[in-house]
Amino acid sequence: MILQNDLLLRTARGELTERVPVWMMRQAGRVLAQYRAVRERAGSFITLAKTPELAAEVTIQPVDAFEVDAAIIFSDILVVPEAMGLPYEMIEARGPVFPQTVRSSADLSRLHVADAETDLGYVLDAIRLTKRELNGRVPLIGFAGAPFTIFCYMTEGKGSKTFSVAKKLLYTDPHFAHTLLRQITDSTIAYLKAQIRAGADLIQLFDSWAGILSPEQYRTFSLPYIKQICDAITEVPVTVFAKGAFFARHEIGQLDCQVVGLDWNMDPAESRTLVPNKVLQGNLDPCVLYADFAQIRTEVKQMLDAFGHQHYIANLGHGIYPDTDPDKARCFVDAVKELSAQR
Amino acid sequence: MILQNDLLLRTARGELTERVPVWMMRQAGRVLAQYRAVRERAGSFITLAKTPELAAEVTIQPVDAFEVDAAIIFSDILVVPEAMGLPYEMIEARGPVFPQTVRSSADLSRLHVADAETDLGYVLDAIRLTKRELNGRVPLIGFAGAPFTIFCYMTEGKGSKTFSVAKKLLYTDPHFAHTLLRQITDSTIAYLKAQIRAGADLIQLFDSWAGILSPEQYRTFSLPYIKQICDAITEVPVTVFAKGAFFARHEIGQLDCQVVGLDWNMDPAESRTLVPNKVLQGNLDPCVLYADFAQIRTEVKQMLDAFGHQHYIANLGHGIYPDTDPDKARCFVDAVKELSAQR
Repeated sequence: MILQNDLLLRTARGELTERVPVWMMRQAGRVLAQYRAVRERAGSFITLAKTPELAAEVTIQPVDAFEVDAAIIFSDILVVPEAMGLPYEMIEARGPVFPQTVRSSADLSRLHVADAETDLGYVLDAIRLTKRELNGRVPLIGFAGAPFTIFCYMTEGKGSKTFSVAKKLLYTDPHFAHTLLRQITDSTIAYLKAQIRAGADLIQLFDSWAGILSPEQYRTFSLPYIKQICDAITEVPVTVFAKGAFFARHEIGQLDCQVVGLDWNMDPAESRTLVPNKVLQGNLDPCVLYADFAQIRTEVKQMLDAFGHQHYIANLGHGIYPDTDPDKARCFVDAVKELSAQR
Repeated sequence: MILQNDLLLRTARGELTERVPVWMMRQAGRVLAQYRAVRERAGSFITLAKTPELAAEVTIQPVDAFEVDAAIIFSDILVVPEAMGLPYEMIEARGPVFPQTVRSSADLSRLHVADAETDLGYVLDAIRLTKRELNGRVPLIGFAGAPFTIFCYMTEGKGSKTFSVAKKLLYTDPHFAHTLLRQITDSTIAYLKAQIRAGADLIQLFDSWAGILSPEQYRTFSLPYIKQICDAITEVPVTVFAKGAFFARHEIGQLDCQVVGLDWNMDPAESRTLVPNKVLQGNLDPCVLYADFAQIRTEVKQMLDAFGHQHYIANLGHGIYPDTDPDKARCFVDAVKELSAQR
């Protein structure tokens, strides 16, 4: 199917484009009343994520509401550990919790490398359905967590400010850590390739907990596995977004990926210097969307000026906060489109 | 009183020294069994912090146990908002909670600029008592939270991964934000000057939540208030530790402080370039203390080599984790002393 709006893909491939493409991390979610209605109907987050019809519906909502240049499949990075044999629950106001964790080589016998078609068929169905319903309006982004971030949840068992249980294992049992990271990586590659076969037009890797590692640990326990994934995914462009890994920008820029995502701590000009040959994506502080419309436009203009209008995908520096006024989100998208249009 | 070990102060003042001084953030705390015994006796964290005899006792424990080159007064950064009229509770396994918060100019009428002698006399008593009991063995470090970090707690009311309530106010009501930040700053300066009069030999400012701000917001809402404090404190050396503010290192290096603290994400060599004229402090990942003794020594050696042995104070990049083996902490301290001694 021919895409009517392929701006994101042309930009990701390094082409010069007529304006800056824009989408928002977590654009499908609680910020939209129409999402909350579907979520209510589903009964739980996990049911919503596992019902392809509903997942497709909420994936497309922000394309209608905000006219963003891409949809991103509604799912969760933790479906991969679940598919490997480690189920989780989503506890309201607390986040994900794994009743069982994996903390030693003995625990690995409970896991298997995920088979995407059988273990994650519901995500693939959601992608196929979304592609059909999008009918070529915009590209569809598939995604997965980076192996180290998934490792954090599988070992710690829940969110944490420090993930000191997970990090402790890197020092006390590096052999176990690398074995688990390899299993996650193999599962993730198979999963992403299945997403692409199902129709995903671009893949984003989220290394959400990159920022808890020292540069040296990051080089040892995260980057090599991201590299394996980048090397394996050759069919579509790949975006690597490692939140907090300001210290690894140059090395991420050396990977075989097309786009590097930035959080709002990372200076655009400095990032251009550190990552000269990639498309950059980001990085407005999601809190800017609490400001008034005029200030949002001012901040968008500053951001566009700082990144330049080519080789750049506008986005927030992190997921949009659920209590954001949707009109402010729309203002962000509109401002990028208007202010970056070439005349 | 003449200090028998003034290594930390000589280093902080920029003098060349015979070896690298070393202490650990949160060295007085749950890592020590003797601390846990006193904490048990006190009944609560807040009672412990408010009883000068007990606070002095736990302040000195790590000087005995680890032979560190400095004591840091056992207290909490949130005593300042409490002294301004906003009491808090410390909830086990959850952290600090403020039953009331301050979120608009109207709420400011409930607050006053803290009077250190009347509102925080128990900290000053603890400092005086500690100085007497230390009897000149090592210097005593006083401290406070940086105004932006205190602002985060006073407005959000509790710890948070994003502090989006606090950050929202920076956009929706900057006038209120600056007014509250000024009140916190005035309270903090008075408090730190009182700490110095009571005997504190060096002051450390903790901007624990610096890393949630964009560089521009940090320049607007945090740095100017840290600057006011640095300008006001002329009696003793000042250390500024802004966790996560990698992007502000150069600007922090321009402040009238003597020492700049670094977290473990920040590369030593890069930090030397960005902050050429200050003493640096840090920055071992506290998780390294989960490794075996040989690896701890290796990591300490790498750190010393990277920072160099002058104009440098060895420390962790964040507070020591409570479940650290005290022998590993001792290994860290011993390794710094042995490996940095000039022959």
